[in-house]
Amino acid sequence: MQIEVPREFERLGAVRIYGLQKVYELDAGPAMTEPGRDDAIVRSLPAEAIYEVQREMAIVVPVRSERLKLIEGVLVGIPNPCLVIVVSNSPREPIDRHFLEQDSIADFCRFSRKQIMVVHQKDPVVAAAFAAGGYGDVLDDLGLVRDGKAEGMMIGTVLAKMLGKRYVGFVDSDNYFPGAVNEYVREYAAGFLLNGGKDTVVRISWHSKPKIVEQSLFFAKWGRSSRRCNRALNQLLSHYTGFETEIVKTGNAGEHAISLDLAMSMRYATGYSVEPYHYIDLLEQYGGVFPTEHGDMRRLVRICQIESRNPHLHADKGDAHVAEMIIGSLATIYHSRLCPASLQKKIDTELRQGGYLKDGETLPPVRIYPSLAGLAMDRFAASAQEIVERRLGAPPLARPMVS
Amino acid sequence: MQIEVPREFERLGAVRIYGLQKVYELDAGPAMTEPGRDDAIVRSLPAEAIYEVQREMAIVVPVRSERLKLIEGVLVGIPNPCLVIVVSNSPREPIDRHFLEQDSIADFCRFSRKQIMVVHQKDPVVAAAFAAGGYGDVLDDLGLVRDGKAEGMMIGTVLAKMLGKRYVGFVDSDNYFPGAVNEYVREYAAGFLLNGGKDTVVRISWHSKPKIVEQSLFFAKWGRSSRRCNRALNQLLSHYTGFETEIVKTGNAGEHAISLDLAMSMRYATGYSVEPYHYIDLLEQYGGVFPTEHGDMRRLVRICQIESRNPHLHADKGDAHVAEMIIGSLATIYHSRLCPASLQKKIDTELRQGGYLKDGETLPPVRIYPSLAGLAMDRFAASAQEIVERRLGAPPLARPMVS
Repeated sequence: MQIEVPREFERLGAVRIYGLQKVYELDAGPAMTEPGRDDAIVRSLPAEAIYEVQREMAIVVPVRSERLKLIEGVLVGIPNPCLVIVVSNSPREPIDRHFLEQDSIADFCRFSRKQIMVVHQKDPVVAAAFAAGGYGDVLDDLGLVRDGKAEGMMIGTVLAKMLGKRYVGFVDSDNYFPGAVNEYVREYAAGFLLNGGKDTVVRISWHSKPKIVEQSLFFAKWGRSSRRCNRALNQLLSHYTGFETEIVKTGNAGEHAISLDLAMSMRYATGYSVEPYHYIDLLEQYGGVFPTEHGDMRRLVRICQIESRNPHLHADKGDAHVAEMIIGSLATIYHSRLCPASLQKKIDTELRQGGYLKDGETLPPVRIYPSLAGLAMDRFAASAQEIVERRLGAPPLARPMVS
Repeated sequence: MQIEVPREFERLGAVRIYGLQKVYELDAGPAMTEPGRDDAIVRSLPAEAIYEVQREMAIVVPVRSERLKLIEGVLVGIPNPCLVIVVSNSPREPIDRHFLEQDSIADFCRFSRKQIMVVHQKDPVVAAAFAAGGYGDVLDDLGLVRDGKAEGMMIGTVLAKMLGKRYVGFVDSDNYFPGAVNEYVREYAAGFLLNGGKDTVVRISWHSKPKIVEQSLFFAKWGRSSRRCNRALNQLLSHYTGFETEIVKTGNAGEHAISLDLAMSMRYATGYSVEPYHYIDLLEQYGGVFPTEHGDMRRLVRICQIESRNPHLHADKGDAHVAEMIIGSLATIYHSRLCPASLQKKIDTELRQGGYLKDGETLPPVRIYPSLAGLAMDRFAASAQEIVERRLGAPPLARPMVS
């Protein structure tokens, strides 16, 4: 991959948010005999270096009632060196959709001789492992893991940690283009390579999103939700730095990857708020605004934003989904202790004008889970061993799994 | 890349047409310590092997008035080890669109430190080189290379030969997804790897082509032209083998690659007929039907067909374009000496029923160029040296160009 180094960044305490980086070549080929120039504006990252990072990376694919053809395409796109963890919350009744998923993934594993871990969000073994690890926050009244994409991502993150991985990345399961998935995972590796891999978040800004406008395709740059979410995050930053900024382009980025140690120390918001809340959590914890409470200011946290070259064409989830995302993402900002009254007022007005808040309603707070640092990994692992052993596909050919 | 071995083939004389091959992984990662099993149904082709083939490959991108954003995306998708040759036939008046292309490609080369050869189809130097090589067939009354995609592809092929490449591949410049382009070029390499690289044609069958149907996307498998073209080619084959077949899936495949020695010995049809005519030419020359005329039956020619995983989303060229393709591709079959009277009658009826042929009209024959074997390469190269030296971009970092 050839990728430009970021041209700018905004800093708040120990958090650095880098400007959007452009990609110049999806595949830079193998290493050249002459070493790449470190001072170059565009860095060439050879395939070997990319693979080395990917070998330490788990890719989590959250699934919920997705078409099997799309899931298979996503699996085809994930580079081989990555460990794949599918976390499904598809219904098991009246039709056992999860059974169909397992069957289809097992088929893919048979042909590709690949191992894939498939786990159901409502599996009692998963819930028992969280309980054993002393992290009951994620469980509902029935004692099972709560519904929600964030909760599935947390399962994937903990399993990746248990299996000794160093990075965890996420890709949505409704992508029509395997080649786009392949690009995202390369970009995750590129982001870690450029930033040393420690305490780094890599977030993808889609090149564009094709929409049908008057019987032809229009390649929209910003979605209705991400436009609002990015603006509010930038206003929050500006409030503290005193400089107006447009640095944040990936407030809603579903496609992102995190250094696993950092991921284990972050708090998570439920549902669609999970992605923008990464910004809020990192700014609250490492932004240095409340110096007495938290703030290991020596832990430099880097948020790296990369613009993908492929457009993003995914299954259409409809307008209700967009409204939920808008409300969920702005709520994380509104309810942050960092949010000044002036920005709260702006967000409130915006939501009322857009019809997302009715008269008399107030923006409900979002459920926040405490950091996974509170989870006793050894006890979780002892309980979850069964899930790891249940993974689909033949034993790996030569590359033993880290455990 | 992980790819299945073909499950079947049809044979006519020395020509083998392999059944469609499915891809199971876009990126199989680096070589494993344990060697891959040669007897496997799905072969894992490590990145190193793919790159080794790509280093000997030129990718020709025919351009005609394409949007610059799309051209840049296609260049981003081509793997680094390949030599890129852009052959443009964009108008130079009233607006010099080719100048804008050169400017935009030079910009891309500057950032990616890549070398790209850009040549205009109407460049008098190119025409002079063909004339010097004793191959005037491709020139028009003004002494310049004729208009047409096939003619541009022939320029690219000869330049690739001149630069010592072993394979030549083609990708269209109107693709919205750089990741799809990346996949095609990997598949070219996979096809050559699986077949030994000699006398091989690799043709891509698109996974699907998204179309707008009633305000949502429908992923169509077969286009209006490819459906007809494949059927006619299969009927032609069946006539000689005595077995009905559906083996041909890539009659119209714009995405294809050829061993360069084979490409230099093939005849070319003009315009949109160029792709289906590959089948016709190879069957006429190596099918063993006219044993007294041609037919080096020891030259085993393999046509390998691979189904891409990415859908193909390209700029919409409209209905006139489809009609031209239908007429052009069926004409190559109709006018082949191999075509039995019964198939000629079927084609004629089909075109009349579809409104492509009016009463009193007959299907016009297609211009066929003789094989490029008749071109004196040394004299062409001496004249064309100037074009090679004019290539855009900085000198390569470490990988010297073969010359």
